[in-house]
Amino acid sequence: MARTTPPPAPLRSVYLISPSGVVREPADLDRARARLSDLGFKSRLDRTALAVHERFAGTDRQRLAGIARALRQAYPLVMATRGGYGLSRLLPFIDWRAVADSGKIFIGQSDFTAFCLALLARTGAESLAGPTAIADFGRSTTDDLTTALFTELLDRQLEILSFETADADPVDARGILWGGNLSMVAALVGTPYLPDVRGGILFLEDVSEHPYRIERALAHLWQAGILARQKAIVLGHFTDYRLGSHENGFDMPSVVRWLRATVKVPVVTGLPYGHIPTHATLPVGRRVGLATEKGLAHLVLHEHA
Amino acid sequence: MARTTPPPAPLRSVYLISPSGVVREPADLDRARARLSDLGFKSRLDRTALAVHERFAGTDRQRLAGIARALRQAYPLVMATRGGYGLSRLLPFIDWRAVADSGKIFIGQSDFTAFCLALLARTGAESLAGPTAIADFGRSTTDDLTTALFTELLDRQLEILSFETADADPVDARGILWGGNLSMVAALVGTPYLPDVRGGILFLEDVSEHPYRIERALAHLWQAGILARQKAIVLGHFTDYRLGSHENGFDMPSVVRWLRATVKVPVVTGLPYGHIPTHATLPVGRRVGLATEKGLAHLVLHEHA
Repeated sequence: MARTTPPPAPLRSVYLISPSGVVREPADLDRARARLSDLGFKSRLDRTALAVHERFAGTDRQRLAGIARALRQAYPLVMATRGGYGLSRLLPFIDWRAVADSGKIFIGQSDFTAFCLALLARTGAESLAGPTAIADFGRSTTDDLTTALFTELLDRQLEILSFETADADPVDARGILWGGNLSMVAALVGTPYLPDVRGGILFLEDVSEHPYRIERALAHLWQAGILARQKAIVLGHFTDYRLGSHENGFDMPSVVRWLRATVKVPVVTGLPYGHIPTHATLPVGRRVGLATEKGLAHLVLHEHA
Repeated sequence: MARTTPPPAPLRSVYLISPSGVVREPADLDRARARLSDLGFKSRLDRTALAVHERFAGTDRQRLAGIARALRQAYPLVMATRGGYGLSRLLPFIDWRAVADSGKIFIGQSDFTAFCLALLARTGAESLAGPTAIADFGRSTTDDLTTALFTELLDRQLEILSFETADADPVDARGILWGGNLSMVAALVGTPYLPDVRGGILFLEDVSEHPYRIERALAHLWQAGILARQKAIVLGHFTDYRLGSHENGFDMPSVVRWLRATVKVPVVTGLPYGHIPTHATLPVGRRVGLATEKGLAHLVLHEHA
């Protein structure tokens, strides 16, 4: 009996899973899949991606099974439908070696930060801090630059991500790129799921967190010795917070000033990353370069062979 | 030249410092001091307790100086005027050995959790998770039971704190009592300021945190190996949170169910502690006993010699 090797799957086919929060409006996911189809992506929805258990997209068992199925199917890309909350409680039950050995490219952000960092910590494998299906493709409009930065990264055509920075310390360094949502990074400190990256380039963003919480999380990373081990801290966008009536001028710029005064590591602001319409896709766990010049920062994501 | 030893300071005299958030209404503090005076407490306000720097009660330098002055003055009790946010960034700059050697009894809660735990971690010294001046004595009404639980603990008259618990696993154990505000405990994981308590009795409370954040913080402690090392987890009150429109039944009881299903440690609910009017004063770092019987829990705080 002849065995035939299946043809290589195109890098434009994506398997959608829901490892975190419940998909509130399935129509959003229909729209996301239609938009992905317009962009040339074949997509398939995991069979429990629309499951509902409390605020989660299914029970822990269902969501774990979805991740396990994602490893066995033929699509090379695996994308989270959305963030929310839910991966934290799954981390000890995911077979990280199987995830790494699958060769699949996992993509997501926000709550998915826990997945990307745990995968890096347990196996060293790379994943993408990039779009989630609903937030980036399921809305009435899709951001062309977000889409382009995603597909160019997939196609290894994005060699350098350059961005304007109003506020960058001088830096010219190479190191492992890692990070994501600051609250999620902080919630992994002291666990086996935070990668022990030395000489890294740490990128951070957050949403709906008061600047004092951002500062407290940064103080946490600082006092755990994590910040001092990095070659640079790259700040994305910190959005959708509400200041109180007794801040007396305290705001995100105060936090950045405090960070600079506290750690000796170069800080670069302005990374197009976060809970914002226009954001880059970033390879978590890849060795990259970072250099600044007047008013600009360059993140070297993929170098010529 | 004859040196005279000053008379021992009465245990009803308290020095007030502001290591965290700005005192918004100095009149609240006047009311607190008048109320403390009615209760037989002489009080003295540190000279920068009303300082203002951004959202903090003074610059870091001012707040650190307030803590240092508190060690040198004659009053045996040192109480925080309020919580808020601010201790996190001070922790590496406090002389913890001097704090312990001063013999002063430090009292506070909420943000002050960082102080109590860091003191325990660095020196093994005890402090009190108890009243803050403004929240407990500076309002139009003062809770008599909170006051009684505070003074009886100071006077070593409170041997057993018994409380109703609707939901307690059987436990009969002795161990170091530690904990406080869950968000603050979690923000110390992996730093030198979290005590490494083995076989302890961990108490937790929080305010204005959605149950999913409570669960994420508990998952953090769990995955850091901290929960499994305790003899019991005692839950106080988790208050003032707002559920969303897609919880599908998720709430604090779901979190407690998840906690019980996840860790093998006995969980006891109903501790009168948290951001609530009626709360106990608890000795952080003291070896205590804990026992449950039908519908009741008994925390043995001070045993007969």
